[in-house]
Amino acid sequence: MPREVRERQMLDAAVAVFARRGYRAASMDEIAELAGASKPLVYLYLNSKEDLFSACIRREAEALIAAVRAAVDPGTPADRRLWDGLRGFFAHTAAHPDGWAVLHCQARTHGEPFALEVAALRRRLVDVVTQLITETAADGGCTAPLPETEVAGLAHALVGAAESLAGWSNERDGAAASETAATLMNFAWTGLENLSHGRRWAPVAAGGGART
Amino acid sequence: MPREVRERQMLDAAVAVFARRGYRAASMDEIAELAGASKPLVYLYLNSKEDLFSACIRREAEALIAAVRAAVDPGTPADRRLWDGLRGFFAHTAAHPDGWAVLHCQARTHGEPFALEVAALRRRLVDVVTQLITETAADGGCTAPLPETEVAGLAHALVGAAESLAGWSNERDGAAASETAATLMNFAWTGLENLSHGRRWAPVAAGGGART
Repeated sequence: MPREVRERQMLDAAVAVFARRGYRAASMDEIAELAGASKPLVYLYLNSKEDLFSACIRREAEALIAAVRAAVDPGTPADRRLWDGLRGFFAHTAAHPDGWAVLHCQARTHGEPFALEVAALRRRLVDVVTQLITETAADGGCTAPLPETEVAGLAHALVGAAESLAGWSNERDGAAASETAATLMNFAWTGLENLSHGRRWAPVAAGGGART
Repeated sequence: MPREVRERQMLDAAVAVFARRGYRAASMDEIAELAGASKPLVYLYLNSKEDLFSACIRREAEALIAAVRAAVDPGTPADRRLWDGLRGFFAHTAAHPDGWAVLHCQARTHGEPFALEVAALRRRLVDVVTQLITETAADGGCTAPLPETEVAGLAHALVGAAESLAGWSNERDGAAASETAATLMNFAWTGLENLSHGRRWAPVAAGGGART
């Protein structure tokens, strides 16, 4: 079996065990067993528990960012891009609850180097959203552009809201990713004022038709 | 000096040291020194480092909830209550950055019992916001009431956004609490659609006049 395939199996097993047991309680024995590999081989390929955990964080972070990017079509209007990005985010966190638990809960809780990796992921998510909000304001024909600080604040608010909802959604049974995405889309796009008057955001066919 | 006063000094010192050093690296020697007390007295009053940390979490959580509640006047319209609550929240987290760091960063990162205390705080914040959103929908004359699940989702989104912004705001120098509150209020109340068209929420005099 090629090393690449073996390593992927080890990372899959590690993410599952770290999510279930927590970083500290996770044992390399259990990870090796779940990966169907010997413990020496896990150490040979991935060096140490610490390095293995870092590799998990990096892989899960890249996968999440890639899922959000892949969901967004740059040629569509701002609200569509936000909607597609949110659906991509929640579909990914719902499909990979262990990966999300490692990123959101485990990695932040076990010391500086891991927390820094997650902070870097968060900055990239905030950057994606910042750009989206800037473009939204431009699309909207905003006469006075939103101040840079406010855009940064809005991006942090949206990312924090999405993180909170991903955890909430994964704790509930059978919560559909698109339902969670719709809740956040309505909140972020139309606001509570509109929602309280029964006004909602609705997707409009874009390019190849509505993809809701 | 009465025990009550002594204990408050010890908790003040502990919050500062836990926030600065992290739970694990924090030493009881440093806490005692900063509190101007002997180490045996700290142990006599607060039992152990673990119990001291728990006491810090509980005190800071109660203070934060009390600050939000005190900021809100139940007789005012929903948007006013949300605005006042957000300002209360950010004013408190800005004035007590160490307390916020203990709650938001430290307590979640050092094992089950502490994380459970913070989860309980979070549930109470979500409850306050859930009630506010339900009343908002009723005030708005919402013909079809928002489904319960959606209200819960909106509340989690808003609390997550507020947590994210509190951290961001405390990292920036000189960020005013009311500025952060205004950013989140605009996001939550009017949404990105309105913001991108230059429409904003503005406080209206309520009862004794505008308190912005």
